[in-house]
Amino acid sequence: MEPYTIQTDDSGSLPPVLDVHVNISGRSSMPGKLKGRKARWSVRPSDMSNRTFNPIRAIVDSMKVKPNPNKTMISLSIGDPTVFGNLSTDPEVTQAMKDALDSGKYNGYAPSFGYLSSREVIASYYHCAEAPLDAKDIILTSGCSEAIELCLAVLANPGQNILVPRPGFSLYRTLAESMGIEVKFYNLVPEKSWEIDLKQMESLIDEKTACLVINNPSNPCGSVFSKSHLQKILAVAARQCVPILADEIYGDMVFSDCKYKPLATLSTNVPILSCGGLAKRWLVPGWRLGWILIHDRRNIFGNEIRDGLVKLTQRILGPCTIVQGALKSILHRTPQEFYHNTLSFLKSNADLCFETLSAVPGLQPICPSGAMYLMVGIEMEHFPEFENDIDFTERLIAEQSVHCLPGECFEYPNFFRVVITVPEVMMLEACSRIQEFCEQHYHCAEGSQEECDK
Amino acid sequence: MEPYTIQTDDSGSLPPVLDVHVNISGRSSMPGKLKGRKARWSVRPSDMSNRTFNPIRAIVDSMKVKPNPNKTMISLSIGDPTVFGNLSTDPEVTQAMKDALDSGKYNGYAPSFGYLSSREVIASYYHCAEAPLDAKDIILTSGCSEAIELCLAVLANPGQNILVPRPGFSLYRTLAESMGIEVKFYNLVPEKSWEIDLKQMESLIDEKTACLVINNPSNPCGSVFSKSHLQKILAVAARQCVPILADEIYGDMVFSDCKYKPLATLSTNVPILSCGGLAKRWLVPGWRLGWILIHDRRNIFGNEIRDGLVKLTQRILGPCTIVQGALKSILHRTPQEFYHNTLSFLKSNADLCFETLSAVPGLQPICPSGAMYLMVGIEMEHFPEFENDIDFTERLIAEQSVHCLPGECFEYPNFFRVVITVPEVMMLEACSRIQEFCEQHYHCAEGSQEECDK
Repeated sequence: MEPYTIQTDDSGSLPPVLDVHVNISGRSSMPGKLKGRKARWSVRPSDMSNRTFNPIRAIVDSMKVKPNPNKTMISLSIGDPTVFGNLSTDPEVTQAMKDALDSGKYNGYAPSFGYLSSREVIASYYHCAEAPLDAKDIILTSGCSEAIELCLAVLANPGQNILVPRPGFSLYRTLAESMGIEVKFYNLVPEKSWEIDLKQMESLIDEKTACLVINNPSNPCGSVFSKSHLQKILAVAARQCVPILADEIYGDMVFSDCKYKPLATLSTNVPILSCGGLAKRWLVPGWRLGWILIHDRRNIFGNEIRDGLVKLTQRILGPCTIVQGALKSILHRTPQEFYHNTLSFLKSNADLCFETLSAVPGLQPICPSGAMYLMVGIEMEHFPEFENDIDFTERLIAEQSVHCLPGECFEYPNFFRVVITVPEVMMLEACSRIQEFCEQHYHCAEGSQEECDK
Repeated sequence: MEPYTIQTDDSGSLPPVLDVHVNISGRSSMPGKLKGRKARWSVRPSDMSNRTFNPIRAIVDSMKVKPNPNKTMISLSIGDPTVFGNLSTDPEVTQAMKDALDSGKYNGYAPSFGYLSSREVIASYYHCAEAPLDAKDIILTSGCSEAIELCLAVLANPGQNILVPRPGFSLYRTLAESMGIEVKFYNLVPEKSWEIDLKQMESLIDEKTACLVINNPSNPCGSVFSKSHLQKILAVAARQCVPILADEIYGDMVFSDCKYKPLATLSTNVPILSCGGLAKRWLVPGWRLGWILIHDRRNIFGNEIRDGLVKLTQRILGPCTIVQGALKSILHRTPQEFYHNTLSFLKSNADLCFETLSAVPGLQPICPSGAMYLMVGIEMEHFPEFENDIDFTERLIAEQSVHCLPGECFEYPNFFRVVITVPEVMMLEACSRIQEFCEQHYHCAEGSQEECDK
């Protein structure tokens, strides 16, 4: 019998399900060259998948705590503005999708980096005199996550490093480490509204630094850098000749008393890849439409980086074409009122949360200026029962059914993050439960009895 | 002046655009520790992006040929069934998307591997007694391309190898080589309706072989493996203990005289990751909804590979949620007539193309049984003017304005691929132009004058 024929029973008919013999002994009974071949099953996940570490999942999934059954759960943990139903996208956005469907023009493959017409729409929307953009400067991606992935993948080799903010969004680390790129953390300073410690950041740069990741407005801080701070960041990049990956997914999501400047509008020489998308501002994170804006007016990236990005898009062929087809109407027909209402709501919730928690013993909230988050410092010395911020937030779930992410998820212990997209009544209720929790567990620190008695 | 302050003009006002000095000399004028730091711009694309090589793009983009201005262009090159407008998705599919939009339920983040409800829909649709599936066996992806990417990424480390068909879809190589995975080619035999040369395939397997990639029905061949051939493939995998990545994106797209068997229905022991999606059968390739079906009844992949896949999905967070939300209606409401009509049309065009080209001197078309393609052998000895299949297809564009991809795009010289999704009248016109082209360039091979005179 030649080895490629299936052994059948005498009747010659094949069984409906074939159960081929697996050789477990380590030696095959088949003739032929078997030197160096596997003789038993051993399928292990790759190093890359083993290295793909999501700290939020690792921390949250290992929490074995159950919420208090007498209190309804209030989750302030997920950065998804849509989950409570109070923040919906604009009807024009939905209509744009229906029109794209009805046109029948957007069912086929688009170029892997996006339709020309859709890239033109993004280019003209973000174009300005200080940072001109053309369709050739735009790459459309499957969400802002893929935008960041492609930027890291084109700029850094395994063994190189990137600088990311601490506290910061965990995806940078997840993506970089999965690719064998080292992550170095530069510090944000809570006392300075989370500005970057520039000296410390600059001290981390070495010959292996592939890029600086600048996230503005910030997740998890809700901070927005001033123009002059952005200029100082650019000065470091220029001096050290390190390009910037600007995660600007919360761009334009700043409260009325604050001004957002895209990083690229403040420099003509530092090459910048700015990542954005529909997710947050248009309240459709599930639609997975992101983009990279390539700012390279001195031709430092040159065609090589552009071509590299395009080549990388050919791996998965870009975002959903219906959303691409709807982009023009989404960007041009969404009424200003929609953006205004979202920001008013966020600002109001931010103020409410900040003011309430400011009065809570042992907490130090940092006032946000944009995005959808607020970071709250925990004076751990006043909560000796709790080992750390993870323990603190676990007990908050167990006792008050309020779920906040511990700062550890953002590489920043002794803090927790509050998501401020929940309906106002839930925001109030959550703050009041956090207050009750803190009051119950607050202890005067040793040697500060006097202060506690006040 | 401290180094983090921007130098301003005397008036103290910052220029609207900041142009930070770039040190080109290689030495910085700034004080401080600069040892080992970059002092000039040098941003190079990563090795990974350099390794991301798409042979189709490389070959097609380097063709400098212009079509014949007197003949309208007929492109038989792109595997996109939607481009000619004759093959449209079913109205139920479009309606399902509108319903998902109107529900307002699918705008937020889904789990990175897909909504549970959507995974349940896929599981029950592809479940059968021989290859049972549950929601936990399904991973939703951004198109079948990402499905294949994740499978390769979880199964293979750099330095390992995968076995892929020749001729075959170029994406396997593009993805694998970008990840530093070696590609080995096993041969498909045109004389045997493109069955695999199993001995040659098995001879390629070594201790570094991470998986066999089996594409059935085949792009570019349009071939469909028989049940007994699939069983022989499984026998090799079982004997060598190598898992299978089954690219079954053209599953069920077979002509009436042929039967398609999913590979996993024929084995209970070989672990199989089957990749599919909406692209081809539902005629919406741009929507980027793909999936992985995990078949692992002997628990050889185990939780590790499943967890590895889930971890990898966290990099870009899955496909568009609107399409996920529409999946149930798409799979259950699309009328059988729609599938039937598509296949009847493809079969008719396949027959037309095969019969016409069979009569053309110097061509050897191989009759397809499914998918959307047909491979045509070129008897190069009869076309001495042309250096190779690339030259042949270039001249076909220049003279006849008919664009087919050369076999070289599929690692298979002396062939070209015809896409059979064009309207019948274009198919006829294209075949007649190919015929004219071949008749004009056909030369009798040396020593076969007698045969030519016939």
